[in-house]
Amino acid sequence: MPNSTSVQHTPLPTFADVEAAADRLCDIAQHTPVFTCTTASALLGAGVHCYFKAENLQRMGAFKFRGAYNTLSQLDAEARARGVIAYSSGNHAQAIALAARILGMPAVIVMPEDAPAAKVAATKGYGAEVIMYNRYTEDRGAIANKIAAERGGMTVVPPFNHPHVIAGQGTAALELLQDVPDLDYLFVPLGGGGLLSGTLLAAKHLAPQCKVYGVEPEAGNDGQQSLRAGHIVTIPTPRTIADGAQTLALGDLTYAIIKENVTDILTATDEQLVEVLRFYAERMKLVVEPTGALSLAGARYSGIDFTGKKVGFIISGGNVDMATYGKLLSEGLWGLK
Amino acid sequence: MPNSTSVQHTPLPTFADVEAAADRLCDIAQHTPVFTCTTASALLGAGVHCYFKAENLQRMGAFKFRGAYNTLSQLDAEARARGVIAYSSGNHAQAIALAARILGMPAVIVMPEDAPAAKVAATKGYGAEVIMYNRYTEDRGAIANKIAAERGGMTVVPPFNHPHVIAGQGTAALELLQDVPDLDYLFVPLGGGGLLSGTLLAAKHLAPQCKVYGVEPEAGNDGQQSLRAGHIVTIPTPRTIADGAQTLALGDLTYAIIKENVTDILTATDEQLVEVLRFYAERMKLVVEPTGALSLAGARYSGIDFTGKKVGFIISGGNVDMATYGKLLSEGLWGLK
Repeated sequence: MPNSTSVQHTPLPTFADVEAAADRLCDIAQHTPVFTCTTASALLGAGVHCYFKAENLQRMGAFKFRGAYNTLSQLDAEARARGVIAYSSGNHAQAIALAARILGMPAVIVMPEDAPAAKVAATKGYGAEVIMYNRYTEDRGAIANKIAAERGGMTVVPPFNHPHVIAGQGTAALELLQDVPDLDYLFVPLGGGGLLSGTLLAAKHLAPQCKVYGVEPEAGNDGQQSLRAGHIVTIPTPRTIADGAQTLALGDLTYAIIKENVTDILTATDEQLVEVLRFYAERMKLVVEPTGALSLAGARYSGIDFTGKKVGFIISGGNVDMATYGKLLSEGLWGLK
Repeated sequence: MPNSTSVQHTPLPTFADVEAAADRLCDIAQHTPVFTCTTASALLGAGVHCYFKAENLQRMGAFKFRGAYNTLSQLDAEARARGVIAYSSGNHAQAIALAARILGMPAVIVMPEDAPAAKVAATKGYGAEVIMYNRYTEDRGAIANKIAAERGGMTVVPPFNHPHVIAGQGTAALELLQDVPDLDYLFVPLGGGGLLSGTLLAAKHLAPQCKVYGVEPEAGNDGQQSLRAGHIVTIPTPRTIADGAQTLALGDLTYAIIKENVTDILTATDEQLVEVLRFYAERMKLVVEPTGALSLAGARYSGIDFTGKKVGFIISGGNVDMATYGKLLSEGLWGLK
């Protein structure tokens, strides 16, 4: 990891950075709606009020647009002309592609061969060049760095471990907490930690009373392991339907913010994610991707007593292959075999 | 039809009735969001702006709540105590059940045996008693009248041919046209005509420039036939996935308003409805029932030149059995065989 020295010296982003990101994103990103749902509230207990921040209705279908645009819009004219390169299992790819198109920049995206077809198609649809790699045998970071150098210094934007990315992702919780300031709990999907660490920066400042939980796939609980171990734990690529949370490890920036501020990290099984996907579709009429279902799944099976509390959830995205999604709704996990 | 004489003398509802309904529904019904979508706009032509009134996010998942509550809330205390009975392929049933529960009234719902399981379950969940009948051999109106009489005079609320129902349904378009006053076109799903006739009352007053189209399933185009023939045409129960538009004929009230004010009535095939369902799920992250897809399907295949125009769509509802919906997304119509 030749970049690790410089990364370690990167200062952590602050709440002021989240506020500055919100200014940059104003009129560019969607201020997504916050939905309530009496059925979900009743499921969690008596007198519970649930609030769902619908980032599946964000531009390109996920919160990732916030961090991508916040990062690219701070590049100078020369860097913009050289273009941007990113590696991603899907939503970061589309986010960079769309943000680059808005800013008039060339974009190259390094994507795993087994990324959902809809995400690959959408990334190409935003005008980006897509280069495929094998998620289980190749190092996407190395591939991206090589191409960036070959093409005369494209800017590499990592999917989560970057202060501008983190600050941008924090604007989703910023909006939620401006709309509903007195949340008691907030549940957030956790992959590499960009969304969770950004959320923690916003919550610490705007709602210090609010307990913030990250929720990972059970098969990919590197964040939970890291929190317990007191250092960043790296795992093999997890097999889970939550393709947006198949990360191997937190970054040093996201880990530092999470370990300092998070209440705890929970997990959810693929079976629980399917149940929650169906709930969102049947009762709230929302298409949510498996990763986006982590937050509600984590809370639902946490054993926490929510009686009389206000509970927030970030629905991180809604980009899911329709063939896969349809099978999950009609047949469950067996439909994918 | 022993009731037809009295029905013929019922005065047609007016825009003032729609406004009064909006006052009754304020703080009771959801003021549902209006979504835009650049992909849909691009599909319809250059410079097109699309606006989607998301009644799938209405209470109980469809616009029908508006008409049901507007009707029941005008009953006096005695009539409320006697209770309400309704016959419906689904959404009207849930709407009456929920409105009755809110108003503290007993409710009996006569439902077809092949109604979607989710709709039957939801109706029972709202506390109503459900009585089943065979859609292809029995007369639901006669069954409802018999039960109403047996139980000491329950109020029968028909699903569309009633001035208070029509006025209530018109509040969806009222809200849409208050949010987007300068629509050039508005497309509306058409079953028995409650939503379309209410919409026409609102549009005539608020947006006289706006061309309003009803859209029926191709297999159930009784409304289109009626408009062409100049009188109400009755058809056998149509076989279509748009279960909310399997009506046999318009009512005399809805027909009178429609023939006077509608621009035209279009149709959509089941194949087109599946394509549009997938579009809503994939691009707009919205779960829409087949009947709710009629409006966009009708516009998409109308051949109308929408260049530079503002086009509105009412998404009438989102109540669809998850097993059926999942198969439609993953396999299309073949999944239902």
